[in-house]
Amino acid sequence: MIKGRVKGKIWSSRHVDTLPCGALLEVEVDGGGRLIAFDPLGCATDEAVLITQGSVAAAYFTGRVAPVDALIIGSIDETTDK
Amino acid sequence: MIKGRVKGKIWSSRHVDTLPCGALLEVEVDGGGRLIAFDPLGCATDEAVLITQGSVAAAYFTGRVAPVDALIIGSIDETTDK
Amino acid sequence: MIKGRVKGKIWSSRHVDTLPCGALLEVEVDGGGRLIAFDPLGCATDEAVLITQGSVAAAYFTGRVAPVDALIIGSIDETTDK
Amino acid sequence: MIKGRVKGKIWSSRHVDTLPCGALLEVEVDGGGRLIAFDPLGCATDEAVLITQGSVAAAYFTGRVAPVDALIIGSIDETTDK
Amino acid sequence: MIKGRVKGKIWSSRHVDTLPCGALLEVEVDGGGRLIAFDPLGCATDEAVLITQGSVAAAYFTGRVAPVDALIIGSIDETTDK
Repeated sequence: MIKGRVKGKIWSSRHVDTLPCGALLEVEVDGGGRLIAFDPLGCATDEAVLITQGSVAAAYFTGRVAPVDALIIGSIDETTDK
Repeated sequence: MIKGRVKGKIWSSRHVDTLPCGALLEVEVDGGGRLIAFDPLGCATDEAVLITQGSVAAAYFTGRVAPVDALIIGSIDETTDK
Repeated sequence: MIKGRVKGKIWSSRHVDTLPCGALLEVEVDGGGRLIAFDPLGCATDEAVLITQGSVAAAYFTGRVAPVDALIIGSIDETTDK
Repeated sequence: MIKGRVKGKIWSSRHVDTLPCGALLEVEVDGGGRLIAFDPLGCATDEAVLITQGSVAAAYFTGRVAPVDALIIGSIDETTDK
Repeated sequence: MIKGRVKGKIWSSRHVDTLPCGALLEVEVDGGGRLIAFDPLGCATDEAVLITQGSVAAAYFTGRVAPVDALIIGSIDETTDK
């Protein structure tokens, strides 16, 4: 997984019909770069989050495979980083 | 997912027979780099798009696994980026 | 797989309910960069570890697909590096 | 998918027995870097090609999973690149 | 797939029980970087090898999913590189 910080929200009115309903957040990844992740937790801007990527992100959704390759799986509350 | 901007179209007359019919767009990825994504939405040049990658892109297609590892899943209409 | 060194622990009180119970370690990857990996082995800070990524990491867990894309699969005890 | 240009051929007499018979081409990727892709189309040196990566590349082959993570899916004949 | 050159061996006495028995080799990747790949072929140090990555690497193993995301699939014997 990777750590990141929520930067804002993305809206996409015109999208494929298999995209699940919910928030798409723009996240700045620790170490640089940005990605868009599906947020099932209702995270706020500037919140530190944990993101999983690839097919395991899509597997969070049940039914037809969701076209989601990045999922916020947790809000980070503490770290013992050196 | 990643954000990008449509730059043009790719034509491939000679291709494997499992490639689905449809548009293959060249997209400039936010942060640098380019990739080719399948476009089921009819996006225009310069349009900002949301792209999913990997096996979840292929899962959009039904029947035999499509050899597609990048799919435009939405057109981006607004963002609250800092 | 990639080699890394454990740097600390991550806590996430608010997380998706499919995240397995267990330690989430921050690992500094050989060659640069950091990632968060699930640790089923009880590794210590500064321990050199071997990490697998992607859907094969999630497949370590049984039952519903775990949203885990990085797994510590071993503690490295020796290398014949040039 | 990514675009690339065929640079040459790779031979591997000693290989795992699940590797499908066929050409393995070295491809220079647009933007830099090289990879080895399986070529089911008979592409020539200097030909511009479209490559898919990951498990969807392996899914092109039927029967036991092929250990192929990069597949040439088309020869590029034209582009409207800006 | 990617090309690389074997640099040495990794030992991991303490590992998850689903890790298959066999050699784990450290490989220097063409273009830079290193990774650890499972070697079913008995490759020697300095040998040039072909590596596949991701879930297709794990699919080489039968039975429960192996936590292996990089597999040596061949020894490279010749190339017509420009």
